[in-house]
Amino acid sequence: MPRILLSNDDGYLAPGLAALAKALEPLGEVQVVAPEQDRSGASNSLTLDRPLRVRTGLNGFLYLVGGTPTDCVHLAATGILPEVPDMVVSGINRGANMGDDVLYSGTVAAAMEGRFLGLPAIAVSLVGRDPEHYDSAARVAADLVRGLLSNPLPADTILNVNVPDLPYAQLRGREVTRLGRRHKSEWVIPAADPRGEPVYWIGPSGREADAGPGTDFDAVRRGYVSITPLDLDMTRYRFLESLSEWLQCCPM
Amino acid sequence: MPRILLSNDDGYLAPGLAALAKALEPLGEVQVVAPEQDRSGASNSLTLDRPLRVRTGLNGFLYLVGGTPTDCVHLAATGILPEVPDMVVSGINRGANMGDDVLYSGTVAAAMEGRFLGLPAIAVSLVGRDPEHYDSAARVAADLVRGLLSNPLPADTILNVNVPDLPYAQLRGREVTRLGRRHKSEWVIPAADPRGEPVYWIGPSGREADAGPGTDFDAVRRGYVSITPLDLDMTRYRFLESLSEWLQCCPM
Amino acid sequence: MPRILLSNDDGYLAPGLAALAKALEPLGEVQVVAPEQDRSGASNSLTLDRPLRVRTGLNGFLYLVGGTPTDCVHLAATGILPEVPDMVVSGINRGANMGDDVLYSGTVAAAMEGRFLGLPAIAVSLVGRDPEHYDSAARVAADLVRGLLSNPLPADTILNVNVPDLPYAQLRGREVTRLGRRHKSEWVIPAADPRGEPVYWIGPSGREADAGPGTDFDAVRRGYVSITPLDLDMTRYRFLESLSEWLQCCPM
Amino acid sequence: MPRILLSNDDGYLAPGLAALAKALEPLGEVQVVAPEQDRSGASNSLTLDRPLRVRTGLNGFLYLVGGTPTDCVHLAATGILPEVPDMVVSGINRGANMGDDVLYSGTVAAAMEGRFLGLPAIAVSLVGRDPEHYDSAARVAADLVRGLLSNPLPADTILNVNVPDLPYAQLRGREVTRLGRRHKSEWVIPAADPRGEPVYWIGPSGREADAGPGTDFDAVRRGYVSITPLDLDMTRYRFLESLSEWLQCCPM
Repeated sequence: MPRILLSNDDGYLAPGLAALAKALEPLGEVQVVAPEQDRSGASNSLTLDRPLRVRTGLNGFLYLVGGTPTDCVHLAATGILPEVPDMVVSGINRGANMGDDVLYSGTVAAAMEGRFLGLPAIAVSLVGRDPEHYDSAARVAADLVRGLLSNPLPADTILNVNVPDLPYAQLRGREVTRLGRRHKSEWVIPAADPRGEPVYWIGPSGREADAGPGTDFDAVRRGYVSITPLDLDMTRYRFLESLSEWLQCCPM
Repeated sequence: MPRILLSNDDGYLAPGLAALAKALEPLGEVQVVAPEQDRSGASNSLTLDRPLRVRTGLNGFLYLVGGTPTDCVHLAATGILPEVPDMVVSGINRGANMGDDVLYSGTVAAAMEGRFLGLPAIAVSLVGRDPEHYDSAARVAADLVRGLLSNPLPADTILNVNVPDLPYAQLRGREVTRLGRRHKSEWVIPAADPRGEPVYWIGPSGREADAGPGTDFDAVRRGYVSITPLDLDMTRYRFLESLSEWLQCCPM
Repeated sequence: MPRILLSNDDGYLAPGLAALAKALEPLGEVQVVAPEQDRSGASNSLTLDRPLRVRTGLNGFLYLVGGTPTDCVHLAATGILPEVPDMVVSGINRGANMGDDVLYSGTVAAAMEGRFLGLPAIAVSLVGRDPEHYDSAARVAADLVRGLLSNPLPADTILNVNVPDLPYAQLRGREVTRLGRRHKSEWVIPAADPRGEPVYWIGPSGREADAGPGTDFDAVRRGYVSITPLDLDMTRYRFLESLSEWLQCCPM
Repeated sequence: MPRILLSNDDGYLAPGLAALAKALEPLGEVQVVAPEQDRSGASNSLTLDRPLRVRTGLNGFLYLVGGTPTDCVHLAATGILPEVPDMVVSGINRGANMGDDVLYSGTVAAAMEGRFLGLPAIAVSLVGRDPEHYDSAARVAADLVRGLLSNPLPADTILNVNVPDLPYAQLRGREVTRLGRRHKSEWVIPAADPRGEPVYWIGPSGREADAGPGTDFDAVRRGYVSITPLDLDMTRYRFLESLSEWLQCCPM
């Protein structure tokens, strides 16, 4: 029976994680290692400056005190579980992870860490600010896990899945997509603390800039599950050659 | 005169940042916004749950209390500076950022954030555990900045630069490289706190697995400056088509 | 019906807090505001550099994201609840808070903050490393709350209660005690991270030094509930006069 | 030559610490171990959940990465220095530590930790929001250190010193004081993050309530250095007897 490791970035008590665990239990031995707290925006950050503590929550899930999503998958795949897992499923995130936001996402990072450690991995997010249909997303995830168990994906590849917040029967299908793009972020938001000293909030994300046909934004808007293959190798191969030329502009 | 924003992940007091500022001053108006503390391993993490404070250090550099490298570039490019910068240079990192490590690097993340906000950006690292030749790396950076000022790079592209820890005259040249790969990380390292409770350190990185000709690892080992173009768009385009077929294995 | 505010330093999911809430429900309207995480050792630390977030846990308790015990009581008594509470009960702490340890205790700090804001307050701890009889401590707490509702304590005074880990029927009674003293802490415990860099753990507490008759240590050891009145006014009054003389040794 | 340990809660780069080090150098071997960052409001919090790192700053002072004032003094007195210090001087704090604020002060906590570990200890603060006359406070500290070297204080006692922000020659002298009291804090200050979610700032301190003759508030206002002896033993001895009676109101 395959061992399926679950993690997320919303914390071990998040409803999306519980829904995912329930939906995947028929497919394998489900093991959960998740952050204690909400770590949205943690990206691939890894805790190297201190050791981590593993605890068991009241819901039976393991959690890392102060740990990031990447920490969770890393430790789970390198020795804190009795056996190394066979696959990583990250989510179900509360809210979308599409376009540029993927860069900052702890949900996507957990899946990346799994793949990086040699395990097939997918990241699943439920679109919406306060989404409800975790069961839909969980069922979508179960479908894909079934596929992964028989048909491997290329090395360096994970699937980033975004599910519209709809009942499963109302999902119009799945679309393979590329990441869309947003416009530049909004300006910083200045505020003041009670002593009158200035503080700054990071401004909201920009509006969608590239959200046309073929993008994750577009698929979700039309009621489709968006499935984007992500590449862990960040080298921009198609620019390798031109870069050599480019460098002639500024010799050492 | 171009406005050059500097940041890093070693903190605003790091010697690599000072060397970089000094080398770039002849080329433009240098502005520094860096984390207060060492944030190595922060990746692209962004602080959304609280507002940030900007302070001026004794060395005249701006720093963000508790901020990440990404926070620094984001705030600098969205309003805390009198004028938006024209370019971002991140580093000089104490130690290499090559191969898989790029994923976790705050140095690379700061450059990515710059590019993401529309600015040309490079990340510069000095190879070695306790490297010394920051001046070499600073001079390498200055060469590239000169190029960037006249010749733009494609959108979504940053340069990841790793400099061997040698005197500038001993650098053998520059090589355009792809990211190498490491073997899977070492196992977790269990320890115990003074009360006997178990804690776990993330284990060391794995050995180099793909470090042959063409990789950053190889270039640096032979005394060359490694320059890898990185792609901010993580979509794995070459797999888009096959993914559609793949999905037939597990229908909704 | 009196409004009883509960807090602790073990986090809003701790079993001691649940036991306390259950035992006090017949006596008033119980409201819980506790830290999200274990904050043992937080002392009276107060979060002034950022704003705090209040969330409702699955168990219905309010918790502060990243908040300290003092933050919890402070916010609860200054406006985040519909009505200001009439009393603060902190605990039930997992483990004793006796002798010098009181200084570092977040459990005691939460009660101090309540008193400081004008509310009667007690701190309750269950002795032992992994204690079990939270019901005993909860019943002891309920007895004292009943007393506080009719008989006020002097200003600046809170009660620090330590309960032996025994079934309620086996508790031998209550004793009024003074704080005992420990010997100086043990030495720092040096260790190394996986990169070989030195790190230091704070060493364990010292052994009991003053633990004779009249102390909290002694009462608990003999099976009694220890009740120590603590003074929020830290002025050492009995030394005021001698200090004037003392100062003559070193004129300005 | 006596070994004088300095620490503070404003961080190892604070001007008050530098002024203090300079003023005490003629009196003994000065060693500094301070927090890396501003830890005002840390109270006596102690880091027990992870090991700490010691680094040497550019100014030659040792600092603890992420450490509290209490951590600093604790580690310095239990083994990270070649020899255990003979005395602790904490400060010079940027701003007053008077009245109720003493409870939350990391500056006072550092001195308490020293005394708790068996060392004579004083805490020194310079009154004012952005005070300037650190040299005055440093000279006041030096006077008192001279006294401490010859005339010990009682066990469990530290001196809490608040210096008006005046040139030394304009200080009117020293007064032995008790802690004043403030009115209850102001109400919580609600705000919203950029996503519209509510956050809460701790409100400002209350106005002075007990600030009449004999208090620290009063002495400083009249231009005197306030010296308050603080008691580490928090037992409220004068209430021990009445508490026994009080308990009869609520029998077990």
